Amino acid sequence: MLPTELHAALQDSFPPERFYTDPVDCYTYAYDNSRKIFPPQAVVFPLNASEVQIVITLCNQHKIPLVPRGRGTGTSGGSLPEQGGIVLSLERMCDIIAIDPANRVIVAEPGVLNQTIQEAVKPHGFFWPPDPSSAAYCSIGGNIATSAGGPHAVKYGTTRDHILGLKAVTGNGEIIKTGCYTTKGVVGYDLTRLLIGSEGTLAVVTEATLKLTALPAAIAGITAYFHDLESCTEAIVKIMSLAQLPSALEFLDTGSLNLIRGRYPDMLPPDARAMLMIEVDGTESEIQVSTASILNACKTGGLIKAEKTGNTAELWKARKALSPLLREIAPKKINEDVVVPVTALPEFLDTLKQLSSRHQLKNVNFGHAGNGNIHVNLLINPDDRDEVHRAEQCLDRIFDLVIRLNGTLSGEHGIGSEKRAFINKEIDQPTLTLMKAIKALFDPNNILNPGKIFP
Amino acid sequence: MLPTELHAALQDSFPPERFYTDPVDCYTYAYDNSRKIFPPQAVVFPLNASEVQIVITLCNQHKIPLVPRGRGTGTSGGSLPEQGGIVLSLERMCDIIAIDPANRVIVAEPGVLNQTIQEAVKPHGFFWPPDPSSAAYCSIGGNIATSAGGPHAVKYGTTRDHILGLKAVTGNGEIIKTGCYTTKGVVGYDLTRLLIGSEGTLAVVTEATLKLTALPAAIAGITAYFHDLESCTEAIVKIMSLAQLPSALEFLDTGSLNLIRGRYPDMLPPDARAMLMIEVDGTESEIQVSTASILNACKTGGLIKAEKTGNTAELWKARKALSPLLREIAPKKINEDVVVPVTALPEFLDTLKQLSSRHQLKNVNFGHAGNGNIHVNLLINPDDRDEVHRAEQCLDRIFDLVIRLNGTLSGEHGIGSEKRAFINKEIDQPTLTLMKAIKALFDPNNILNPGKIFP
Repeated sequence: MLPTELHAALQDSFPPERFYTDPVDCYTYAYDNSRKIFPPQAVVFPLNASEVQIVITLCNQHKIPLVPRGRGTGTSGGSLPEQGGIVLSLERMCDIIAIDPANRVIVAEPGVLNQTIQEAVKPHGFFWPPDPSSAAYCSIGGNIATSAGGPHAVKYGTTRDHILGLKAVTGNGEIIKTGCYTTKGVVGYDLTRLLIGSEGTLAVVTEATLKLTALPAAIAGITAYFHDLESCTEAIVKIMSLAQLPSALEFLDTGSLNLIRGRYPDMLPPDARAMLMIEVDGTESEIQVSTASILNACKTGGLIKAEKTGNTAELWKARKALSPLLREIAPKKINEDVVVPVTALPEFLDTLKQLSSRHQLKNVNFGHAGNGNIHVNLLINPDDRDEVHRAEQCLDRIFDLVIRLNGTLSGEHGIGSEKRAFINKEIDQPTLTLMKAIKALFDPNNILNPGKIFP
Repeated sequence: MLPTELHAALQDSFPPERFYTDPVDCYTYAYDNSRKIFPPQAVVFPLNASEVQIVITLCNQHKIPLVPRGRGTGTSGGSLPEQGGIVLSLERMCDIIAIDPANRVIVAEPGVLNQTIQEAVKPHGFFWPPDPSSAAYCSIGGNIATSAGGPHAVKYGTTRDHILGLKAVTGNGEIIKTGCYTTKGVVGYDLTRLLIGSEGTLAVVTEATLKLTALPAAIAGITAYFHDLESCTEAIVKIMSLAQLPSALEFLDTGSLNLIRGRYPDMLPPDARAMLMIEVDGTESEIQVSTASILNACKTGGLIKAEKTGNTAELWKARKALSPLLREIAPKKINEDVVVPVTALPEFLDTLKQLSSRHQLKNVNFGHAGNGNIHVNLLINPDDRDEVHRAEQCLDRIFDLVIRLNGTLSGEHGIGSEKRAFINKEIDQPTLTLMKAIKALFDPNNILNPGKIFP
């Protein structure tokens, strides 16, 4: 229950349809794609920066946790009210404020969906590059919170490369404005990118100026099937050493292929044990040149076939279906999104196979190979305590391996609560101390998404 | 004079050839391209992070200013020891630590020159996009300090888009490691970009991991000459609304053209009063398509001619010569690098003409029109007190105009000391307070480059 005084103050500021306290109403704001459940005591739906400021100020007065939330599609628990308190749902701040194609900019509130942005700018010949699997449903506020990427990040980068400026309310209740409206600007510190990826722990974004990218003239697909993992990872390294970057380079291991086979029996060659889904974009002539080089780079010892694909839509559907299909193997997936340098992928994936086998775990891996960003899934029964224990041990080894290979623990999901225990493996103590001090500066009472990121 | 104890401690740690105290030796570290002169009491040349840490620790103990310096090519006074103290010259930390073309990465110390990086990676088919005019002489440490750009930023972005990770020593003497080695990574706060553009006020960078970009297959040039400014700015807006971005789009006004005419009498059409130098890159077919669209976009009422150019080298030489040539008009230039949205360029340049005329000032403008980034030069005699006063008034109006047009005070030079008095025009008080608090966090004794950026 909220303190009576806080409850009354929120009731004064927000009508009932924008202030939930009934546990039934609140329950849908208790979970995200990490599948943990932490019901909040209340959910508030602000419509503008002033209302965000009101809630933050009240939470500071009463020392009550406030957890900003986009659409709750994150996988690391970043939007969960782990310590109770209030969920600040930005879903009703969903206005597009300005579309300015001549300056290649769109200005939007945080609740606007990624897909809505794409639809708004497409008629002008643009897109906004971040494209997480959840693009049709996730919000740009959430994309900003985790610096979301997706398959096209290999060519286009992630959210932090595509935001020019932000308006936000800090944990201390101050309204700030960061960055600028233009493609260049070096006035003061880069608070824009400090907020991007900070998982709602520093400030609540209330407006974002997004930089747009011209839609490519054409897109083409290539698929390559391999007899063995080693030939496939060799091809990845060769493709990424070509001058022209593919616009997507997705890797699927045997486990992933078997999942697809279960759903689409005739889609894949029966002897394929690894696969690449490759996309190239640009002018027709660029595509021709790239396609030829990539087909050539795929010619490793274990290649079954590499070919241009007509209908890439079907393939992407199968690729996107992978994540939910994993639940067919085991009730719980421990889902990581580690990154290693591309040249380290062969060693990483090979050692990963050994590790999961040694720990007797079902393991399915796929992901954005062009960035070295692999979604490692350990599939377990959460009621089998021994299996849970083995998974924990295996995960610890996987993270050690990633760090040894000069990689990073998370490429796009963020730390949230799920990877909090491991952040010390990657970030040294002085750097972590500095980050925590920045947190304390923006949010001295530790109101905003408390407990996330830092152990 | 340094405090005796500090002098002795530095003498213990550094041999005489890496610790200057003779005023004659120190004098060459007293100025940069802002033409202000502030001699330091000493210059120290560290060779590694530990030595940087020693100096920072000593300066903290003795509360002595420490000003990090690359090659002193900045124009905003960022590297000047305005309050005296010690200059920390990074010029001897100039090792390339690793070239890793397969992962599209080069790791280097801060003193490595931009040009050296380009030469090291070119044989592998790569370049590092930031390309300030001083590229042949400036260091990557300095590029990082200001998030340096250059003409190719219109297509490739600035320094902050091309750094993956940093090692640095904070003003508090802590060695930190930010970012990662891979193209994706969202573990903890983005301290990498917080340091980029912070002008040596937060930490001293001791190592940088640079992201490389593939060299374009081909490059082509276009020049367009106009009877009047209005037709030229109209063409800029039309070119920037094309899908394919030019790799450079440089604008030169009448004053700039007259300067070039003085040096190269027959290079330019006599009736040209504005000019665009345009570069496109990519495959031959892309270049063909872009060139046709750009030539078409140049067809405004006042176009004299727009044509493909054979020898772009000669033109770039003339363009690069502009900045030093300005000294032929008047002994002092007040040199700004303001940015406005591209669609606001017509109004900006037109109003600028009125403002300089009303204040009876010589004014020459050129720059990176594709980013809306214009180098505004007010040319004055510093001994003419009335002219200096008129220039100050005019500058104030120019900055107000920039802000009214939703622009920014600096696109690539940074604030340093030169633009410090104006930062309040762009950044509101709560945001500025937060930036200053971040400064205090990294550098509690205000040792590192004190007094810069903030008024």
